[in-house]
Amino acid sequence: MNRLWIENGTFVTMDDNQPWVKGHMVVENDRITYIGEAAPTPIPEGAERINGQGLVFMPGLINTHAHSAMSLLRGYSDDEALQVWLQDKMWPMEGKFNDEDAHWGNALAVIEMLKSGTTTFVDMYDRMPILAKVVEQSGMRGVLTRGVIGLCSPAEQTAKLEEAKQFAKEWNGQANGRIRTMLSPHAPYTCPPDYIERIVAAAHELDVPLHTHMSESAAEVQQNVNDYGTRPVEHLDKLGFFSRPSLVAHAVHLNDDEIALLAERRVAISHNPASNLKLASGIARVPELLKAGVTVSLGTDSAASNNNLDLFDEIRIAALIHKGVSGDPTAIPAMEALRMGTVYGARAIWQADEIGALKAGMKADFIAINTEQPHFYPQTEIVSHLVYSGSGRDVQHVWVDGRQVVKSGVCTLLDEQKIMAEAQRAFEGLLAR
Amino acid sequence: MNRLWIENGTFVTMDDNQPWVKGHMVVENDRITYIGEAAPTPIPEGAERINGQGLVFMPGLINTHAHSAMSLLRGYSDDEALQVWLQDKMWPMEGKFNDEDAHWGNALAVIEMLKSGTTTFVDMYDRMPILAKVVEQSGMRGVLTRGVIGLCSPAEQTAKLEEAKQFAKEWNGQANGRIRTMLSPHAPYTCPPDYIERIVAAAHELDVPLHTHMSESAAEVQQNVNDYGTRPVEHLDKLGFFSRPSLVAHAVHLNDDEIALLAERRVAISHNPASNLKLASGIARVPELLKAGVTVSLGTDSAASNNNLDLFDEIRIAALIHKGVSGDPTAIPAMEALRMGTVYGARAIWQADEIGALKAGMKADFIAINTEQPHFYPQTEIVSHLVYSGSGRDVQHVWVDGRQVVKSGVCTLLDEQKIMAEAQRAFEGLLAR
Repeated sequence: MNRLWIENGTFVTMDDNQPWVKGHMVVENDRITYIGEAAPTPIPEGAERINGQGLVFMPGLINTHAHSAMSLLRGYSDDEALQVWLQDKMWPMEGKFNDEDAHWGNALAVIEMLKSGTTTFVDMYDRMPILAKVVEQSGMRGVLTRGVIGLCSPAEQTAKLEEAKQFAKEWNGQANGRIRTMLSPHAPYTCPPDYIERIVAAAHELDVPLHTHMSESAAEVQQNVNDYGTRPVEHLDKLGFFSRPSLVAHAVHLNDDEIALLAERRVAISHNPASNLKLASGIARVPELLKAGVTVSLGTDSAASNNNLDLFDEIRIAALIHKGVSGDPTAIPAMEALRMGTVYGARAIWQADEIGALKAGMKADFIAINTEQPHFYPQTEIVSHLVYSGSGRDVQHVWVDGRQVVKSGVCTLLDEQKIMAEAQRAFEGLLAR
Repeated sequence: MNRLWIENGTFVTMDDNQPWVKGHMVVENDRITYIGEAAPTPIPEGAERINGQGLVFMPGLINTHAHSAMSLLRGYSDDEALQVWLQDKMWPMEGKFNDEDAHWGNALAVIEMLKSGTTTFVDMYDRMPILAKVVEQSGMRGVLTRGVIGLCSPAEQTAKLEEAKQFAKEWNGQANGRIRTMLSPHAPYTCPPDYIERIVAAAHELDVPLHTHMSESAAEVQQNVNDYGTRPVEHLDKLGFFSRPSLVAHAVHLNDDEIALLAERRVAISHNPASNLKLASGIARVPELLKAGVTVSLGTDSAASNNNLDLFDEIRIAALIHKGVSGDPTAIPAMEALRMGTVYGARAIWQADEIGALKAGMKADFIAINTEQPHFYPQTEIVSHLVYSGSGRDVQHVWVDGRQVVKSGVCTLLDEQKIMAEAQRAFEGLLAR
């Protein structure tokens, strides 16, 4: 049995029963078995002992919306109108991706996420078995889904859906349960209604959740009204989408009725503040969503529209922007922003019993932050410091499923130098062909 | 003569004549003497040689609005209404500050700024000789000003103004010219008009610029209208404020006429996006200000309302938020945001001939960023990466006035460990008394 005993640590647990522990944590294999002020009794025999002095331990962050392979396109198109960015820049380059490009783009994203403290991520893209293999090797936890665009022939629609189902079946529960799967129509504006219904039926058949992009831009909402006579939330509801556990990304443009319906249907949101700002999509009504009882988690979206995968950045932007826009400085307090990146993230992917908090019985997914730096002083309100002053670069160590995947800032299971060099080569290859 | 020769470096110069150099830079004493693709001829004899491989060099960042001593209050009050934050939390604690508290708060701010790549900052506070001594010792560059609040007896007003003048006279040009001074009425709402006029007269007398807080909140603008029948810009203009070179912080709530007048009077702005969001003050009309030709620079404000002093954070937030709020994804492109943190910062403090760009003849204030990290890959658009993906934690080395003040992430002239420990002790002392 692998045992780990952290002594003299400060733990931000995100567990409401004991939010703040100065003391000890014990891990046995993939689970936390003890956390408390007193030393564990009996002393865990043969445990690896870690001196927690100068470190703050907290649950690993959960990024609920990403497109990892697109990390190859970081910085390839910035400060452009959305349609130029998407149609003239992203799609032509993505069209040239081959399996190797996808592999290195995925690996680049995974090392960036791990090093900055994200232990679990949701990814919607294609060539998903390639990503699943990277996740398996990296030690990370992922909820992976082949996103399908239905603007094609019925035969192609069917082929894509079959591929998505095949992936969802084959990889669900793999890697000691670290990989789970979903099904995903890319968006209401890229999938005809009957295709969405087929995907919903398939999700019932496989008993997997659904993920989609929804109401990211005002134009897309208007197009939905023009095409189908309803706004996207009602549209998806009519198609049965919310009869499955559902996670929707963006949800920027919502009216009060839509917020009420999302709450009623227990739909989880992935709020992507940096991407929504950068693409000028708008600012989601997060305080209203939280007030209505909707689970709001955080996502980076891809490195092509963010342009980083540091979830601490999303946490801080979420804590700041809704104050500034609403005029209410008490909106999204620091602790609520941190919940969005941890416990609410776990709820958004139906794993709140397992991850998102430090608690005996839960999976040992946690990170250690070096707080012996000026921006964490005076050491007073540590949650405030993590949110308003912390960064993924402050992450020193990362464990997932009880296994150390980042040690002193370096990935233990992946070769960072090789991945960066190969990602560079892959990008240059895309430019050249 | 001290000579430094950087070889094989990538230089983001912020000089429009050669914005991007892959090659060499030579520094002699406090100035850059050469920057270009070819190796310098003749070879600089006896120079310290630095291999620039894997590093990106750029001008040091310029933070145009800070209150360093308040770093002691980082996290002391968050997520509160502005008046609660200020009157119930900040002012009572600040009232307890003694010289030693000010010293350690200042030193904490200075090490945080230097380590995150800020080489020059503007500071408005009291006990300024204490800060000036820290700046002198740290090797940093500062524009320092004793901010005066005039809500007191005439005798006290005079005493404060005399103190401010004395400081401005004594310290202007000290530390090899690294320290310059200004005069500063704290704000139109904390200084009666006749007191502002006396400060303006003193600025003429000493030939120093003026700095103030202006139009940070909507309530303050309304109060100005109620009290004086004009909005703050016209009010200050009538008092002769803009007859001096002027830097105003915040400028969140401006109408079109005010923007036009600020442009006409060549008033520089310190835009403080994180602080304005966190205190829910609002979102400054930066795209309109830039369009009108106003110099817009960036400031962190204090660590009590931010809560960090990493100017890369302000650069990114400035690049993101104005897109999201305006609905225009081309607003504040990456390069413009980087200018706000460098060249426009230099203009805002009337030192654009000396700092803010890498160019032969200018002061050698520059930083080296470690770009061998996943969030900088693929290495394509480096300016985009610096703005949207970079952080103060990526700063490896810092030089000011040709002297290395941060080496491999560690301050060379200040004792970081001691400063953090003493700042902690000072904060605990404030809590206890």
